[in-house]
Amino acid sequence: MILATLDLLRTAGLTGAALNDIVAASGAPKGSLYHFFPGGKDQLVTAALGEAERVVGDGFRAVFSRTGPLSQKVNELFGAAASRLAASGFTRGCPVGAVTLDLEGGSERLQAVCRDIFRAWCGIIESGLDGVPLTKRGRVAQLILATLEGGLILSRARADKAPLLETGALLAETLDLAYGTNQRTKVTRASSVRPRPKGPR
Amino acid sequence: MILATLDLLRTAGLTGAALNDIVAASGAPKGSLYHFFPGGKDQLVTAALGEAERVVGDGFRAVFSRTGPLSQKVNELFGAAASRLAASGFTRGCPVGAVTLDLEGGSERLQAVCRDIFRAWCGIIESGLDGVPLTKRGRVAQLILATLEGGLILSRARADKAPLLETGALLAETLDLAYGTNQRTKVTRASSVRPRPKGPR
Repeated sequence: MILATLDLLRTAGLTGAALNDIVAASGAPKGSLYHFFPGGKDQLVTAALGEAERVVGDGFRAVFSRTGPLSQKVNELFGAAASRLAASGFTRGCPVGAVTLDLEGGSERLQAVCRDIFRAWCGIIESGLDGVPLTKRGRVAQLILATLEGGLILSRARADKAPLLETGALLAETLDLAYGTNQRTKVTRASSVRPRPKGPR
Repeated sequence: MILATLDLLRTAGLTGAALNDIVAASGAPKGSLYHFFPGGKDQLVTAALGEAERVVGDGFRAVFSRTGPLSQKVNELFGAAASRLAASGFTRGCPVGAVTLDLEGGSERLQAVCRDIFRAWCGIIESGLDGVPLTKRGRVAQLILATLEGGLILSRARADKAPLLETGALLAETLDLAYGTNQRTKVTRASSVRPRPKGPR
C-alpha cells in the first residue's frame, strides 16, 4: 500500500494520489487502509515519502560518499535521475517535489515532512563536497538539489533526458571553474604542497 | 474563470484544480464553463497556463532585457520569485512546474503546452546573457530556469525565502566566477573590441 501510494505520488502528485486509486493499485481490501493507517491519507503519504527519503537518500549517498572529482559526482547524480525518469516513460519524478507543489493551506504537517526530507538529502550531498570551501558546502548542496528538482521538471515536460543531463553537466562544469574542483583533491593538494626542483642539483 | 484556474493550479497542481472548485472560485455559472471551454478542463488549463506564460515571461523580459551584470539579473530574478512566493504565504508557486509534476499518462497535449512555455522562457533568459560565451547561452538559460523551478520547491517546503535567495545568489556568483561576467558587459566589450594603439603614430 505504501509502494502503491509512492508510485501514484510520483506520477500525479498529492491530489492525484486518491485513496480509492491507492487501494485499487495495492490490491488490499479498503478496510486494511484504515486499520494500518488510522491517520488516513496524510499518514499514508508520510509513510510513502519516508520510503522515498530512504531509497533516494541511499542513491545520493552512493554517489557522494565516494572520493573523486565533484564534477563526476554531479554528473553521476543527474545521469542516474535521468535514467530513472526515462525508464518510467517520463511519467515518474521526485515524489517530494510533486507533493510540495500540491500542498494547499492546512497541510502544515506534510509540508514539514517534505522540508525535513530535503534537509536530509542536502546533508548527504554536503558531506561529499570535498574541494568546495567549507563555508560554502551547505549552499552548494542546496544548489545541486534545487537544480536536480528543476531539471526533473524540465526533462519531464520535454519527455527527454537532455535537460537533466545538460543542466547537470553545466552545473558540474561551472562549479569546477568556480572552485577549481575539477582535479582530484588528493593530487591537487600533493602537487601544490611539494616544491618543484629548479634545474639539476 | 481563467484566473481562478491559474490560482488553483499554482496552489494545488493539476489534479488539485478540480472543475467544481474552479467554477465556485470564479463565481460564474457552470454552464458558461462548457460554453466558453467546450474542450473542458484541458482547454481551460491550457488557457490558464498561457496567461501564466505571458505574465511570468514579461517579468523575465523586464529583468533580462536590461543591460547589466549577469549576477545582478540572476539575483533580481530569484528575488522577485521569492517575494511573490512569500506574498502568497508560500502557497502559490509556478503553475507550469506544478502541472508538469501532475501529468499522468494520456496528457500529451498538456505536456506539450508545458514544454513550449519552458522553451519560450528559456529563450527570453537566453537573450539577456551577454558576457556568457554564445555557444553556452542556451544551456546557461536552461540551468537558470531549472534552478529557479527547484528553488521554488525548496522555498515552498521550508515556507522561507532563503532557499530561493541563496540558490540564486550562489548561482549568480558561480556563473560570475566561471565566465567572468561580473563586470559590466559594455565596458568589457568596448575594451576587448577596440584595438589598442601601439605606441605613438
